[in-house]
Amino acid sequence: MKPSHIEHIGIAVNDLDESIKYYQNVLGLECYNIEEVKDQKVKTAFFKVGDTKIELLESTDPEGPIGKFVEKKGEGIHHIAFAVNNIEEKLRHAEENGVRLIDSVPRKGAEGLNIAFLHPKSTFGVLTELCEDNNK
Amino acid sequence: MKPSHIEHIGIAVNDLDESIKYYQNVLGLECYNIEEVKDQKVKTAFFKVGDTKIELLESTDPEGPIGKFVEKKGEGIHHIAFAVNNIEEKLRHAEENGVRLIDSVPRKGAEGLNIAFLHPKSTFGVLTELCEDNNK
Repeated sequence: MKPSHIEHIGIAVNDLDESIKYYQNVLGLECYNIEEVKDQKVKTAFFKVGDTKIELLESTDPEGPIGKFVEKKGEGIHHIAFAVNNIEEKLRHAEENGVRLIDSVPRKGAEGLNIAFLHPKSTFGVLTELCEDNNK
Repeated sequence: MKPSHIEHIGIAVNDLDESIKYYQNVLGLECYNIEEVKDQKVKTAFFKVGDTKIELLESTDPEGPIGKFVEKKGEGIHHIAFAVNNIEEKLRHAEENGVRLIDSVPRKGAEGLNIAFLHPKSTFGVLTELCEDNNK
């Protein structure tokens, strides 16, 4: 049942190149991948720190989810993703416990993971992603 | 130079007891410690997931940092803490790279760690904590 680790932390930024420089030069992390996720209307940059990835997200469209987030709240932490096994069962378990699901069935996210989001209104303000890596 | 892992993710909540139930019952994490940090005017609850702790923060005073945050932004992710060695050197390095420091010298945080915060205005919107564990 318990998630094995924090898979990633998603951070909305205005300028991917400038924020990559900060994570590299100040925090000393290495950007190992840049990827566009077209259906989410974002460009993403990935860094690894321990078990966890930092995923910087720059919107490619003001009407996309990150575009709207930045418009409303400004740059900042957007979501936390927990690595789980059997994501479908976890979603049903969350639903049975009264959690509102954004994705009632998993879909493909960045890096080919199966992902689903729980709504922040029922997770105490934290947009929460569940991720299952079936490539392992 | 590189942080070894994400030490914790700080999450501001209105009601520690209610949110503990969510993290336990829905996500399956175990709360292993509840602690009051008086100088930060918070009660905190800790969960471990992989290398990383989830630190729930309930304000004990509307004038404290978490009280003000929740008043302004509502519940949600408050900060990310990176585990580092030689925190003093990291602070100087950040400062030399133009980062505004909230704590120019480390202070004691929860669980006896030496901590210091970087200002979100110079970290692309992310309130960023550096943590050094000298108890190891």
